Amino acid sequence: MQAKRVLTLAGDGIGPEIMQQGIRVLETVAAKFNLSIKMESALIGGAAVDAEGQPLPASTLAAAKESDAILLGAVGGTQWDTLPRPQRPEQGLLGIRSQLELFANLRPALLFEPLASASTLKPEVVAGLDLLIVRELTGGIYFGQPRGVETLDSGEREGFNTYRYRESEIKRIGHVAFQAAQRRGKKLCSVDKANVLEVTGLWREVMNELAAEYPEVELTHMYVDNAAMQLVRAPKQFDVIVTGNMFGDILSDEAAMLTGSIGMLPSASLAASGLGMYEPCHGSAPDIAGQDKANPLAMILSVAMMLRHSLQYPEAAAAIEQAVADVLTQGLRTADIAHEGNSIIGTQAMGEAVIKAL
Amino acid sequence: MQAKRVLTLAGDGIGPEIMQQGIRVLETVAAKFNLSIKMESALIGGAAVDAEGQPLPASTLAAAKESDAILLGAVGGTQWDTLPRPQRPEQGLLGIRSQLELFANLRPALLFEPLASASTLKPEVVAGLDLLIVRELTGGIYFGQPRGVETLDSGEREGFNTYRYRESEIKRIGHVAFQAAQRRGKKLCSVDKANVLEVTGLWREVMNELAAEYPEVELTHMYVDNAAMQLVRAPKQFDVIVTGNMFGDILSDEAAMLTGSIGMLPSASLAASGLGMYEPCHGSAPDIAGQDKANPLAMILSVAMMLRHSLQYPEAAAAIEQAVADVLTQGLRTADIAHEGNSIIGTQAMGEAVIKAL
Ligand SMILES: CC(C)[C@H](C(=O)O)[C@@H](O)C(=O)O
Ligand SMILES: CC(C)[C@H](C(=O)O)[C@@H](O)C(=O)O
Repeated sequence: MQAKRVLTLAGDGIGPEIMQQGIRVLETVAAKFNLSIKMESALIGGAAVDAEGQPLPASTLAAAKESDAILLGAVGGTQWDTLPRPQRPEQGLLGIRSQLELFANLRPALLFEPLASASTLKPEVVAGLDLLIVRELTGGIYFGQPRGVETLDSGEREGFNTYRYRESEIKRIGHVAFQAAQRRGKKLCSVDKANVLEVTGLWREVMNELAAEYPEVELTHMYVDNAAMQLVRAPKQFDVIVTGNMFGDILSDEAAMLTGSIGMLPSASLAASGLGMYEPCHGSAPDIAGQDKANPLAMILSVAMMLRHSLQYPEAAAAIEQAVADVLTQGLRTADIAHEGNSIIGTQAMGEAVIKAL
Repeated sequence: MQAKRVLTLAGDGIGPEIMQQGIRVLETVAAKFNLSIKMESALIGGAAVDAEGQPLPASTLAAAKESDAILLGAVGGTQWDTLPRPQRPEQGLLGIRSQLELFANLRPALLFEPLASASTLKPEVVAGLDLLIVRELTGGIYFGQPRGVETLDSGEREGFNTYRYRESEIKRIGHVAFQAAQRRGKKLCSVDKANVLEVTGLWREVMNELAAEYPEVELTHMYVDNAAMQLVRAPKQFDVIVTGNMFGDILSDEAAMLTGSIGMLPSASLAASGLGMYEPCHGSAPDIAGQDKANPLAMILSVAMMLRHSLQYPEAAAAIEQAVADVLTQGLRTADIAHEGNSIIGTQAMGEAVIKAL
């Protein structure tokens, strides 16, 4: 059997240090389960800007296209925020999503039982929370043309972006969401602002059309403002949420925070080909970078998600998830998820603990 | 002194029944404080569609333009959702906002101490919460052209909307927000998605320019996804938030729900002229309409907000706010804010209780 090729893109901020732990864990399960995996690394984001003057070098993109799966740390940092837009770290992330057509972003918001108290919500509101946000990732207002800032005849400037979706884009993300719902609790809530935005009126229509193909799944619709509210009021009413790029960005961060432990949540960005990019839901956290403080568990769980969804190694994935559960049960915590009575450990020690539990 | 003219627009769903209580309270304080107020009512939303075939009849708009302040109940209901877009109730609301240039939407999220337990968040996270969201209300993607759904050459449909802001629009809402911050805790957080959307890059620039005029106010910037998260994580970090129409819609609903009692929150939509429209943050709640279950307190507090901001009757406003505080202290609750041990009362009884407390 040919070795599976994994490209690692550590990126910026805490990216490199959590990636290091992710790689160690991947090496450990590869040895244990006798998996044939070939790892390669490349530059993205601010790290790539510093080294090569652009956030997504051609060599990185080429390597990504050759691989079976990609692991991403995080991108971004204030030192690059004043560069012209095309050279900002985020453009590397947006570029790779778009170039590889990673249109389906799966962001689970899952409450880890031993971490229940880390949530700012009352225990009864979030206990057992397990929802999945399916976010469209390569269209919508993130990529819509025309866009820019222009000077009007009056002399004042005007900025503009275009929120755009065509039927085929809505359909393909819709199918991913309906199928996810079918595998899970069979409830899909499509989030839009159809009472105001025509583009999301089309979104709602297409979702309704698709529903006929998934008779077992119960489809509902909710306006985005109400969804933002319902996530706080009663998050357990949701099973799978499907929405566009911008609303998905907002709601998935809100949902992640409901669990109180965003440092625990992995995500997947998938192409139709099966190629997938896996990354933590949290960002590059420049304020704690290089201090051995970052929580590597979202990265480690991203490795598990990759093994399951792109590399078809479900046992190895399950072993990692079990190991993470074990270290939590042992009371080991990085600072972000610690409570009174826990032993606080660093990034490396947490990685080692997971490896030991494996 | 000439009588102040107040136009009441009850609208749909629970609108009429909460408006009735709002009007009774207004009549009571008018008598008590010897205020000269002339009330008139008109149709808007679904009620106007049913009666006149359109959600914002010309007569309503004319009456609104003649008045010193407007009280709005709520608009919308599923029975109108299948009508062509121009005839939907929401268009009445969007139309009046736009026609009267009510560009500054003030949405406080305030925790009422006796209702602290209604929040789904832990008491220590929300105790004393008092933040104000300043939302731009007549521009952005809500009103941007071009917009619509078209059929592409390929035969598939595409929907599109335009997110657009010009400098002068950003400036005028920025001034309102800086001034509000100056009167309050002197902290202003501007929310955008400047790392992705050019239009919000301009927004950020203009806010930075304005900051020079308000040296006492500390201006910070936050991406909208992070703001959605921080509202859940630590809402008390915020004093005033300023943002565009769409993000403001989402974040203000999320923030309102943090308090657990959205049935308590009023809002104001102000024009440069001083004209203002006052309405509850909650919607038309068709599911409980006509059942004497709705909480009229957000409507009643909207009356207070109107008395203070548009009619310059601060004592009357304070009296209403005190009366509301009193009924809560007495343990009176409508169903939406009730807990064990409270006496649950209906819409009318709650209105009467406030009048009695006055
Ligand atoms: C960094 C930024 C461009 C990105 C996004 O908005 O998509 C991030 O917030 C995310 O959600 O992955
Ligand atoms: C009813 C709807 C058009 C409206 C909006 O989106 O502005 C409402 O959600 C609000 O926030 O007042």
